[in-house]
Amino acid sequence: MKNYIKTSWKETSHEFLDPKLKQKVFTAKNVMIVHYVYDPGLEFEEHSHPQEQVTIIQSGRLLLTIAGEKVELQTGDICSVFPNVSHSSVVIGDEKVEAICIFTPISERVIIDKSS
Amino acid sequence: MKNYIKTSWKETSHEFLDPKLKQKVFTAKNVMIVHYVYDPGLEFEEHSHPQEQVTIIQSGRLLLTIAGEKVELQTGDICSVFPNVSHSSVVIGDEKVEAICIFTPISERVIIDKSS
Repeated sequence: MKNYIKTSWKETSHEFLDPKLKQKVFTAKNVMIVHYVYDPGLEFEEHSHPQEQVTIIQSGRLLLTIAGEKVELQTGDICSVFPNVSHSSVVIGDEKVEAICIFTPISERVIIDKSS
Repeated sequence: MKNYIKTSWKETSHEFLDPKLKQKVFTAKNVMIVHYVYDPGLEFEEHSHPQEQVTIIQSGRLLLTIAGEKVELQTGDICSVFPNVSHSSVVIGDEKVEAICIFTPISERVIIDKSS
């Protein structure tokens, strides 16, 4: 029986979901953790999911709109969007955003396919 | 009804749990996220808890012992210790360790009081 999972993010390449969006995913037992890099101009359209989503901003600025309320995040900010709450986001300014996002519980699919 | 929680970690001071251990805690709905700084020499004795614990090392080196197996973590490493699995840890070398730990589900008390 496994007792732990370990990964080196330094030795893992990002995968591109979109030319302006790349991610590294770590899937644990009850939580999924994603290291994201968003390029300037990236927008996520309004969506919701049953997972709670916690975003930790490591650098850059991101404007979230959570159930219609605008919430600006910058380096060092941490924000939980509660389960099933509608939200969208857009990068502010011309700096990339580096963020760690935590999703719980785990789902096969928390990322909304922007092309659908 | 609240839809989100936001905190600025830049504007929050660490609290000292021990002269060699300080933390900033963010409690979300289903997950607790802690920013830790461990000084050289810090040790956590063997303990376990019902929460899954995911550790992201931001800097420094930490030796975990998970169910008797030694697992060395360094900058960029991410490791999940599964629920109820016994683990201990010790800082390696003379550099501080900066880590983000994610505990899920939330508990009133996931930190083992070292004095008890």
